[in-house]
Amino acid sequence: MDDRIRELVEQVPAWLRTTGEYPEIVLSSRARLARNLRPFRFALKATDQDREEIRTFVLDRLRLHPRLAALHQLELEGLGEAERRVLVERHLVTRDLLKHPDYALVLYEPDESVALLVNEEDHLRVQVLANGLALSTVARRILDLGEILGLLLPLAYREEFGYLTSCPTNTGLGLRFSVLMHLPGLVLAKRLPELVKLLARARLSIRGLYGEGSDIVGNIFQISTTRNLGITEEELLAHFQDTVRQIIQMEQEARQHLEQETPDLVEDRIHRARALLENARLISFEETARLVSALRLGVGLGRIFDVKLQTLNELLFFAQPGHLQVLFGHDMDPQERDRRRAAYIRTKLQSGEA
Amino acid sequence: MDDRIRELVEQVPAWLRTTGEYPEIVLSSRARLARNLRPFRFALKATDQDREEIRTFVLDRLRLHPRLAALHQLELEGLGEAERRVLVERHLVTRDLLKHPDYALVLYEPDESVALLVNEEDHLRVQVLANGLALSTVARRILDLGEILGLLLPLAYREEFGYLTSCPTNTGLGLRFSVLMHLPGLVLAKRLPELVKLLARARLSIRGLYGEGSDIVGNIFQISTTRNLGITEEELLAHFQDTVRQIIQMEQEARQHLEQETPDLVEDRIHRARALLENARLISFEETARLVSALRLGVGLGRIFDVKLQTLNELLFFAQPGHLQVLFGHDMDPQERDRRRAAYIRTKLQSGEA
Repeated sequence: MDDRIRELVEQVPAWLRTTGEYPEIVLSSRARLARNLRPFRFALKATDQDREEIRTFVLDRLRLHPRLAALHQLELEGLGEAERRVLVERHLVTRDLLKHPDYALVLYEPDESVALLVNEEDHLRVQVLANGLALSTVARRILDLGEILGLLLPLAYREEFGYLTSCPTNTGLGLRFSVLMHLPGLVLAKRLPELVKLLARARLSIRGLYGEGSDIVGNIFQISTTRNLGITEEELLAHFQDTVRQIIQMEQEARQHLEQETPDLVEDRIHRARALLENARLISFEETARLVSALRLGVGLGRIFDVKLQTLNELLFFAQPGHLQVLFGHDMDPQERDRRRAAYIRTKLQSGEA
Repeated sequence: MDDRIRELVEQVPAWLRTTGEYPEIVLSSRARLARNLRPFRFALKATDQDREEIRTFVLDRLRLHPRLAALHQLELEGLGEAERRVLVERHLVTRDLLKHPDYALVLYEPDESVALLVNEEDHLRVQVLANGLALSTVARRILDLGEILGLLLPLAYREEFGYLTSCPTNTGLGLRFSVLMHLPGLVLAKRLPELVKLLARARLSIRGLYGEGSDIVGNIFQISTTRNLGITEEELLAHFQDTVRQIIQMEQEARQHLEQETPDLVEDRIHRARALLENARLISFEETARLVSALRLGVGLGRIFDVKLQTLNELLFFAQPGHLQVLFGHDMDPQERDRRRAAYIRTKLQSGEA
């Protein structure tokens, strides 16, 4: 077991705390930059030697900046399946980064609020994460980091386009904002079509918990910006903040409506979810996410007051297959995972932590 | 509210107790006779006047026998929908008897172990019920009653056929034995086809909780004899007892097998069922039956020791729509029933009774 991974699994990432704004609806806010190095071939055409050189080059340059030099460093080479999974589950590594694990590198702040990925779809991906609704904060931090990188590295940039990227959708600002939102109210009230329409109008995209191509589990949606051309960072941010606030309001309305129109149904759903989490002996991650969603709704509505939102965030997080296996120290088949997960959840909800 | 119905709802019928043989598999044993009166037209051709006369005639004759004269007496005329439903749910009244409720009459022992129905599909239907596997007992009691009826009443009987009945399938002995069996093991182990084959070979029929045409809920099956011609009462009984014992053994094997092969799955199912029964805020009768079935299995396997089988029998019984409405004293729409049912179950399982 890699020490760094063990260290990670023993802590709760800063962006999962519930001290931010609207924690019952917005789990976390994120900004990320895509940047490439002028002297090197882009990822799609890069050879292994290129990747090796890129890694060395980036590390050398980052050493010049005390804060970046202090980042923790993790190579994917040599990590087992479950350990890699942990990194994806923690949003420290993208699926794309796993395509060339031998040359991939992750640099991160110990509290996981900043991560720098080398040899992903672009030479460099930088992300800033914060808990709750905190788009201004992550925007300020990512733009600072962008500036520093611009000073340290020869970035691929053209006056007429902006930053050049592997995928043309990122070309321009090379910037994306996103939020992880828990929207059980809109789902229960069957108002998703309305949400999708709003997002299309605002040119935002909607995905599951792990980004592109991932399923939506536990009514958690990743909503993110898509525009990168013909817009400034400030406009992109302001526009996104507006829409996210609109979605928050829609969700609040939907929850209020459910409370008023079908109080029994909501009460039933919440208590069943809690009962199953506290008593199941076998449980899949998907079911866990579904039940945690109902219980989260209960906490949000003030119906459940003896379970902390924080506990539920952690529970959802550590119930993921990678975490579970690293937590228990060995690989497991799905049936054992379902059993260990159920035991973990029971303990977590029964302990003082709940 | 009819006093007799209120009285019934406040007691647990003797045949639902769990003091008999194999209570974890056999809920109850039943025997019933179909008899008709020579001087009157059979049910299908009878007029309302005939039915009126039949009722008077039967009551007059039964008065001659002290034990029969002491039976409680209940007329369906004037009973509300929920009250009639209670009688069906208690197996005191068949759906057929409700076809001409104005002339229908139920005579019964206060503990509900004996019931005599007048103006059903046949002029007279007599049933004896006992808890657990008790086929010899119900056989002895029903044959005694048959003899008494033969002395008191001019029964339709022909030497070459036996007792004449409305439906030719009953002609001959006019006798049926049945058991209510809880067979979750065979269902979970997917061994129902095997059971059906065995029953076909033994010329037995299989139905749901409320007899002909009723759905199977909560893995409770009514298994009954069909033969009435070319066989003696003793042969019918002996043959039926053999087959029922075979089914008990099959069920025991299936449960043991599940315990050995999929202990986690069984454990999970049992604890989830209990958690939902103890925490749901809305619950249908079908779901109640399904969950009670799982919990009953848990008690049968010795996995649950702090819930009595008796409590589960009562819970299943009183969770039925008719009982629930009479218990709470008013008619309810399905949503209110689901809410009251959930509340009733929670109280019942939390109270000392569990």
